[in-house]
Amino acid sequence: MVANALEINPERLWESLERSAEIGRFRDVGLRRLALSAEDKQMRDLFVDWARAAGCSVEIDRLGNIFARRAGSDTSLPPVAIGSHLDTQICGGRYDGILGVLCGLEAVRTLNDRGLSTKRGIEIICWTNEEGARFSPPMMGSMAFAKVLPLDSVLATTDDSGVTVEQALDQIGYAGSATVGQRAFDCYLELHIEQAPVLDREGCDVGIVVGGYRTQALRLTIKGDTGHAGGTPMSMRRNALVGAGYVIAAVNDVGLIYAVDEGRTTTTRIESFPNLPGTYAEEVRLTIDFRHIDGARFQTMRSDIDAAISAAARKANVEIEVAEGWSWGTELFAPDCIDLLRSTAKELGLPYREMRSQAGHDAYAVATVAPTAMIFTPCLDGISHNVKESIELKRSIPGANLLLNAAVARANR
Amino acid sequence: MVANALEINPERLWESLERSAEIGRFRDVGLRRLALSAEDKQMRDLFVDWARAAGCSVEIDRLGNIFARRAGSDTSLPPVAIGSHLDTQICGGRYDGILGVLCGLEAVRTLNDRGLSTKRGIEIICWTNEEGARFSPPMMGSMAFAKVLPLDSVLATTDDSGVTVEQALDQIGYAGSATVGQRAFDCYLELHIEQAPVLDREGCDVGIVVGGYRTQALRLTIKGDTGHAGGTPMSMRRNALVGAGYVIAAVNDVGLIYAVDEGRTTTTRIESFPNLPGTYAEEVRLTIDFRHIDGARFQTMRSDIDAAISAAARKANVEIEVAEGWSWGTELFAPDCIDLLRSTAKELGLPYREMRSQAGHDAYAVATVAPTAMIFTPCLDGISHNVKESIELKRSIPGANLLLNAAVARANR
Repeated sequence: MVANALEINPERLWESLERSAEIGRFRDVGLRRLALSAEDKQMRDLFVDWARAAGCSVEIDRLGNIFARRAGSDTSLPPVAIGSHLDTQICGGRYDGILGVLCGLEAVRTLNDRGLSTKRGIEIICWTNEEGARFSPPMMGSMAFAKVLPLDSVLATTDDSGVTVEQALDQIGYAGSATVGQRAFDCYLELHIEQAPVLDREGCDVGIVVGGYRTQALRLTIKGDTGHAGGTPMSMRRNALVGAGYVIAAVNDVGLIYAVDEGRTTTTRIESFPNLPGTYAEEVRLTIDFRHIDGARFQTMRSDIDAAISAAARKANVEIEVAEGWSWGTELFAPDCIDLLRSTAKELGLPYREMRSQAGHDAYAVATVAPTAMIFTPCLDGISHNVKESIELKRSIPGANLLLNAAVARANR
Repeated sequence: MVANALEINPERLWESLERSAEIGRFRDVGLRRLALSAEDKQMRDLFVDWARAAGCSVEIDRLGNIFARRAGSDTSLPPVAIGSHLDTQICGGRYDGILGVLCGLEAVRTLNDRGLSTKRGIEIICWTNEEGARFSPPMMGSMAFAKVLPLDSVLATTDDSGVTVEQALDQIGYAGSATVGQRAFDCYLELHIEQAPVLDREGCDVGIVVGGYRTQALRLTIKGDTGHAGGTPMSMRRNALVGAGYVIAAVNDVGLIYAVDEGRTTTTRIESFPNLPGTYAEEVRLTIDFRHIDGARFQTMRSDIDAAISAAARKANVEIEVAEGWSWGTELFAPDCIDLLRSTAKELGLPYREMRSQAGHDAYAVATVAPTAMIFTPCLDGISHNVKESIELKRSIPGANLLLNAAVARANR
């Protein structure tokens, strides 16, 4: 490691992670901290306290995105932003986006320890509702910030109980006064656990993310007709749930075929009506998504999935409407930011691999408005969105130090 | 038709059906009249008014089963019972069990018109929650009456909002004072629309039901593990919803194979957890059922379905627990009651066919405590549990007259 390299305080980082892991604890080792819930408020409050204690000024925008800034010596310059999210899935782990936010905080704390000032400020960001577990779509806060999604529709989005984002923000007191999106960044850096097993398998501790897997969600509406579960001859049936079953099976078969080069297909959410024994289903809504690193293979996956959906519709004698949901992965991160991460890793003597993210991240939306790059750190077996999500501190430190030193280098440009 | 044959008043029967069709009207031509709902109460009240106006005494048991008796000349003898149900599915039709109850009422009204007395009384029964749409299982009222189900567990059954049967009965004022099950019947006759297309296709207006299709419901609990929809390699996934998809597809394929001799398989209710985009499912609960007229074929269906479930579990890398749900179809109706229907149909000059029911009916449970038989009348294309359920009055009259004359013959024994 070079002589002037900065090093985070690993014990302090871990202690902060442990504090976070108490808020919304679920099934002993996991977290359930849904966006804008009481638990999310508690974690936000703690983060704001920590940030203020570290000398940051805190601004909150209309969507509850939190911006905690350590001022630079030249306040006329836009800051270097470091962000991620503090919300979790319904059966989430302790690290997910949390590690990224707390590594941002740890960077600021380290600078404070050393009494170091930077030319540009350093701003730690907590984005609202990255997970999309309570309110869909995911990455709502960063997408509205980047004007990828209109603010009005985001505020009007409801959870399954009919509560809007706007109401939920009011309930927890996080509808801030700052305008959504009117902030400039010198650059945006995000550290995140990989949520896939590549780094763990390869024994590599640092991933420099150059972009995302091509990813497309499809929302299917499968339309049949109710009928008697007993008396209706098989040939007359239009059971929408049977249509969904054929779709789920065939879409998974497509994923198994493309697994040879790390393609993925997933069916997640299903809603069936009337969903009763005795009567078969009239309408089923199904969310599927598919991902591939290669654009051309991604296109053939789409064709294969479209064909599978059509075949399922014919076999089940139902109609299937397909609407495109969220998509990402065409964005590439900023070459200068990626180069900064590469050169800083080399200076620090940290082995790394370049990779594309298989998951969605706030960085994709931010990349449309600011130079952006991401760092991945390993998680055990790639397990994530599961209470058993686990990291090793010693394998997280290299990424945290890369983030710190790259941010400082960029802030002192 | 023989000289002393009785004939119902078709216009009056139709008018009563039309009145019923206004209570809980759904999508213009259908009904949503869930068991123990406000609409069910309204229909019950109307039925009780009609029965009292026709000179019946009305008793209601603890489960809301309604018994409206036209006294016979010898009150020491148990009555001839005629029953069915007034509740509907969530997307139900206007006729289903309703026709049967109102044909019972019409029989009483016809006897009143003629000033005829019978030796045994005639008792019209409305069973609580035949459909099982709000509270599961179906045929709850008659099964508790026949002690096929314990009363305590029936009263404690909850709907999807957590309301118990006991609370729902109290809410609509139909928790009656009569003890559940302490009534003797000389016999029990039930008229019902067929809910399958056999009579309609054959142009036959009367089915004499000798028993039911063998029917078995299975409740599957499919256990996987949550994981990230993007980063988890296909080979590591244990998506319970994918397991459900393979089960649904394969179980439907079994049904298509057995369709050659009118076998049926159905998947109806599905519940998935956590049921969110971004995380795949940890646990899915699925209800399936299968039916066959032939006991041996029914057993091979079960083997084929068990094999399909095992294959789905292996393919999706999940565990599947199988619990048996409701079943019926081993009960046979009473030979003397079936003979009575045959001989009465012949006397009336009514063509009929003997058949087995593909649907579940209250008569199955009652058959375990009283001599029982059923009459089917045609419904258009066999469509049922659908708002488009439809009957022709002229094709319903023969069955109604068979019911009337058989009941009177039996009551005068």
